[in-house]
Amino acid sequence: MKKMIIASTSTIHGSAYLEYLLPTLTTFFKNIKTLLFIPYARAGGISYDAYTAIAQKAFKKIDINVQGIHEYKNASEAIFNAEGIFTGGGNTFELVHQIYKNDILIDLKKVIENGTPYLGTSAGSNICGATMMNTNDMPIVYPPSFKTLGCIPFNINAHYLDPIEGSTHMGETRETRIKEFHVFNETPVLGLREGSWLSVKNDTIVLQGKYTARLFLKDKKPIELESGVEVLV
Amino acid sequence: MKKMIIASTSTIHGSAYLEYLLPTLTTFFKNIKTLLFIPYARAGGISYDAYTAIAQKAFKKIDINVQGIHEYKNASEAIFNAEGIFTGGGNTFELVHQIYKNDILIDLKKVIENGTPYLGTSAGSNICGATMMNTNDMPIVYPPSFKTLGCIPFNINAHYLDPIEGSTHMGETRETRIKEFHVFNETPVLGLREGSWLSVKNDTIVLQGKYTARLFLKDKKPIELESGVEVLV
Repeated sequence: MKKMIIASTSTIHGSAYLEYLLPTLTTFFKNIKTLLFIPYARAGGISYDAYTAIAQKAFKKIDINVQGIHEYKNASEAIFNAEGIFTGGGNTFELVHQIYKNDILIDLKKVIENGTPYLGTSAGSNICGATMMNTNDMPIVYPPSFKTLGCIPFNINAHYLDPIEGSTHMGETRETRIKEFHVFNETPVLGLREGSWLSVKNDTIVLQGKYTARLFLKDKKPIELESGVEVLV
Repeated sequence: MKKMIIASTSTIHGSAYLEYLLPTLTTFFKNIKTLLFIPYARAGGISYDAYTAIAQKAFKKIDINVQGIHEYKNASEAIFNAEGIFTGGGNTFELVHQIYKNDILIDLKKVIENGTPYLGTSAGSNICGATMMNTNDMPIVYPPSFKTLGCIPFNINAHYLDPIEGSTHMGETRETRIKEFHVFNETPVLGLREGSWLSVKNDTIVLQGKYTARLFLKDKKPIELESGVEVLV
């Protein structure tokens, strides 16, 4: 029984870290005393300790302790013993690099599939798909593979942005980039706007939050999905 | 004797492909009859033929023929025989993937260092640095390495964008991403705005075009370089 929350972002503009998600997380992590935090993506390049402290501060508001995976001698054991897991955002390349370096990809997939509640935000959400190939991040480190958890049957593009009307910038829009992805790959991609998240219960994936999400299928016109609907690919 | 033009973009807003660079290219590629075009980055996912036709159309205006590297049986031979070389933009991951697949990285470096005039735009400029780790592109394919030509002593961030004032988007700014890069790497990075290019003559690298460029050195405050100055790192 999979139980996941896959969020576009940890933080929405003008609000504290995870604040917009806390009502949802209170229910989602009910009865959980201690959450295992994976700070590998190191948002802004901060230390694991500093990053874990940010997560701790947010979860204290709903009476949940947070412990960083780096505090454990054995990362794999920490995952198997976790009551719940949260992977924070930052750089997806560094996150995936560390997941391979610490050899926890298969363990993480296993416990999620066995029902350990999982929360991902941004980079922590990108890794829920088949590959990290739809991240917006800069390739600042070279991971041994782009393959990720494959806990959902499509890839995530977090912080999805619509083309800016009247822009004179010649860099590719997000939609162009995802279309380029589909020249080389088949995997569907969901563009998840900031403030949106997916609620996963086993194989049922429902879009939550107040925005629509944009679903890209190879050689098809993109579809806008309404909040509250099941994501079917 | 290196002779390179390393441009942020092929096209500036409201103008035709390469148009803003043609006066410079007329001098730069003087006496060259046929230019070798590397279309591997496949801008927008178009075919090599279609992409080569775009380059042909632009260079026809200054009486230079263009031949795509894919039209040759032996890519390495094509590089060694080239009078001049142009690598176009698109997806840097796919470009680097094809450069390794066709085994031309070392050949390309060799002929550039021996004086074959080289033009890069966007992805074709990103590969001039030590690594492609400062591309803005989506990792739609997995190249065997992020190592690139190393013909200049810093990396390029093409299509450099300043933070958008008043933006409510929580995705990282370009500056934040480059700072994250410097948590893990030492190589200096030059943020090259659209309309700017570098003119490389041997080891002298001069910023051209009407904009300043932003130079990022690890653990230092970024510096704005004026157009016309030598880039020293």
